Amino acid sequence: MKRALAVLLALATPAVAQELRQEIETYVDEHQKTILTELWQALSIPAVAADRENARRKASFLLERFRERGFDAELLETEGNPLVWAERTVPGAERTLLLYAHYDGQPVDPSRWQQDDPFRPVLRDAKLGDNDRVLDFDAQSRFDDDWRIYARSASDDTAPIIAILAATDALDAAGIEPSSNIRVILDGEEEVSSPSLVSAIERYREKFEADLMLILDGPLHASGQPTVVYGARGILTMELTVYGPKFPLHSGHYGNWAPNPAMRLAQLLASMKDNDGRVVIEGFYDGIEIDVATKEVLDSVPDDLDALKRLFGFSETDQVGSTLQEAIQYPSLNVRGLSSAWVGAEARTIVPDVAVAAIDVRLVQETRADVMYEKVVRHIRGQGYHIVEEDPDDATRAAYGRLIRIARRGSGTNAFRTELDDPEAQRIVDSLTEMWNAAPLRIRTMGGTVPISPFIAALGFPALAVPTVNFDNNQHSPNENVRLGHFFDSIVTMAAIMMVH
Amino acid sequence: MKRALAVLLALATPAVAQELRQEIETYVDEHQKTILTELWQALSIPAVAADRENARRKASFLLERFRERGFDAELLETEGNPLVWAERTVPGAERTLLLYAHYDGQPVDPSRWQQDDPFRPVLRDAKLGDNDRVLDFDAQSRFDDDWRIYARSASDDTAPIIAILAATDALDAAGIEPSSNIRVILDGEEEVSSPSLVSAIERYREKFEADLMLILDGPLHASGQPTVVYGARGILTMELTVYGPKFPLHSGHYGNWAPNPAMRLAQLLASMKDNDGRVVIEGFYDGIEIDVATKEVLDSVPDDLDALKRLFGFSETDQVGSTLQEAIQYPSLNVRGLSSAWVGAEARTIVPDVAVAAIDVRLVQETRADVMYEKVVRHIRGQGYHIVEEDPDDATRAAYGRLIRIARRGSGTNAFRTELDDPEAQRIVDSLTEMWNAAPLRIRTMGGTVPISPFIAALGFPALAVPTVNFDNNQHSPNENVRLGHFFDSIVTMAAIMMVH
Repeated sequence: MKRALAVLLALATPAVAQELRQEIETYVDEHQKTILTELWQALSIPAVAADRENARRKASFLLERFRERGFDAELLETEGNPLVWAERTVPGAERTLLLYAHYDGQPVDPSRWQQDDPFRPVLRDAKLGDNDRVLDFDAQSRFDDDWRIYARSASDDTAPIIAILAATDALDAAGIEPSSNIRVILDGEEEVSSPSLVSAIERYREKFEADLMLILDGPLHASGQPTVVYGARGILTMELTVYGPKFPLHSGHYGNWAPNPAMRLAQLLASMKDNDGRVVIEGFYDGIEIDVATKEVLDSVPDDLDALKRLFGFSETDQVGSTLQEAIQYPSLNVRGLSSAWVGAEARTIVPDVAVAAIDVRLVQETRADVMYEKVVRHIRGQGYHIVEEDPDDATRAAYGRLIRIARRGSGTNAFRTELDDPEAQRIVDSLTEMWNAAPLRIRTMGGTVPISPFIAALGFPALAVPTVNFDNNQHSPNENVRLGHFFDSIVTMAAIMMVH
Repeated sequence: MKRALAVLLALATPAVAQELRQEIETYVDEHQKTILTELWQALSIPAVAADRENARRKASFLLERFRERGFDAELLETEGNPLVWAERTVPGAERTLLLYAHYDGQPVDPSRWQQDDPFRPVLRDAKLGDNDRVLDFDAQSRFDDDWRIYARSASDDTAPIIAILAATDALDAAGIEPSSNIRVILDGEEEVSSPSLVSAIERYREKFEADLMLILDGPLHASGQPTVVYGARGILTMELTVYGPKFPLHSGHYGNWAPNPAMRLAQLLASMKDNDGRVVIEGFYDGIEIDVATKEVLDSVPDDLDALKRLFGFSETDQVGSTLQEAIQYPSLNVRGLSSAWVGAEARTIVPDVAVAAIDVRLVQETRADVMYEKVVRHIRGQGYHIVEEDPDDATRAAYGRLIRIARRGSGTNAFRTELDDPEAQRIVDSLTEMWNAAPLRIRTMGGTVPISPFIAALGFPALAVPTVNFDNNQHSPNENVRLGHFFDSIVTMAAIMMVH
């Protein structure tokens, strides 16, 4: 018998958990080169979602790596790039975990990188720009925690995949079997919003079933502390076009008389928020309640808001919540773009014909895309507007005093959130707490939107994100990188997940 | 003795005025070809303000034409193109009239004209597009009222200059001497805002002195009725830049917490006007009173507002005045452009870093540029903004919750207005009334701005604009033209001005 049961029974004892952690860390320490070589090889395959051939190459490479570890693995074909699916069942396991990560990276603009090719990894002995030197990977046998590997998808999201493999090896070497059945699903199109993921459920539902999904993606909280994330906001985008005269009019001849669409748009937008940045559209925040226990969790996140304000250069924030964490529990209404005629040197003395505002509404669990869209529309109607589907004709212009077009872009992405007291999530938190001898930060909702949300909703079981990489990883930017210390620690975190009890 | 005195004494009798009008019309009719040839020649000189050489050529051409009529004429040198000055004194005249026109035309884009060269006039037997045919000018001896000459500066503003010359000839032929001393000043830079005009006063003040200036420029009212204009609105332009974060932020991570400059700009603009389009900036309309007599004059202008609304495609106007004419008696606040980040396909899920509004404030006689600027600034301060002169530094960003830059473009152009009961202006109106046997439309204020306003203010005597050309003359656009019937009538109008009593 493997040590699984004994460890399981004893893991609640901090001493045992610390012993296991040391065992894994020792393993990682002794196998640095092997583990990093696997990461290096994976990063050398130029897998962006649009490059179907290389995406498949990387999928196949990873498939083989899971098979080597005794996983039952296969490529699941979709309309787009294949999913890598792998499973290792444990006799007697009471639960199944579904580990989600993605093998595609963001598209690259090599000219903006400080290396020839974002898909030929570069090892540096420090953060780029911090007096760093490039090191010869092959020549190294020992790797320092502060060293970094620079390559596209290093942090987002190849490192977590290799960490799963390394954690499996470490547990195997220790003779410990995971406490749960482990299923792995690797998405090949996350960076293009995972268009094939939901439809894959119909074909492969059985293979996706689990008690909890773990999303292994994203950076740790800026403080660097171990982090778990219970949810992410959704998004609904729309564009408002307010109509003025059919063509721009001379602002001298007709200014004061012809209606100005830019001013009307400004008034319409202003009607949506108060002076403190709170949305005043009726029912916008309906259903959201932050109870005392939740507030405590929000307040436990050590955001350095003063430092953020200095970094971003503002001193007065919107007052939706008393903190950033609290603000993010609410849906937002963000004007992401404005346009009407010209400003600057191109400005002309006209009454513009149209004015446009691009808006995104970030959604939370309590506020679904369709409902929120209707609330915005109702508000706009309440401001006296007649809504048109396309540019109005003369009869429509004659019939209505105020005209607007609302172009909704897609149906939106709903938020997901696993409740803070969800028992499956709590088991993961407990396991991480024991392994790290410290409770992880609990982020109730990330502000951003993850394309996996509809997949979570369609699967119907809870999900928890466990980010592991360094905050300064340049995700989605040139010079993406992973700090090796973070990567090594992530192997311990993966082991803690696998040893959940 | 010329017939001047007898005519002067008798002109108040409608019969005598009609007799004189018939005499002038007969003269014009008999000299169509000669008069139009002079216009044709003037239009053949490509005088745009930036073309110094051709501008001077046209000035010299016109100078000679005035000298031929016995005017004492010279070119007045300025920092830019020369002014043409001409004077004809009348023994015993009690008044001096200063006739202002300009010899430069708008710049051209020949590719957008329906003729090879905007400075090679084309004669058409109808309005371009109305089944018109091009006629050979040289081959014609009779010219129909509905025919048109197409050329840059045809209407704006060469035709009125030639009309002065023709009216002089007609009066001379009739043996009638003008009742006033006539001074003519022809501007060569009106289309570039007359930069040399005010400074010319210092050098040539004596030559400009008069009892009344007549601005011979612009089209008749859309109804086609004889028109006099007592004033024009001024303009003050500024650009407002509201600052958000130092760089665009992720709208998911920070939307709801980071201040959004586009929303704040919308709120600021919205704070400036009520829902009916009336400006609510404190004191914006101070000093403006429309008394009953003025209202009657405004209401006597036969604007077809329903037709305008149909043409422009709106049904709900701003409610600054009950009519367009009344609205224009007030200063306007017009958002002529808006910009922040991106809209449309380029839109990104960000909190923008800045939002910009370009604004023009049209001024009236009661509201001077400097005072109005201060009122707008005070209002913006009252909305909680700290005003910066350039992009704020970190310390400024940390110190103030709301930051805005207000870029004023130049010092603005003040309005001018001669009062409706001004006796000098009234004499012109009376003379036109007698000559045309109908009172001209009296426009108290044009909505647009004329660069001559500062010149009028600096000279210090009243001014009245007497437009004469067709409304559909494509002024400032391709295919500028003058309708010959309007041009012939304008000669009568010029004679009426010269015969003011």
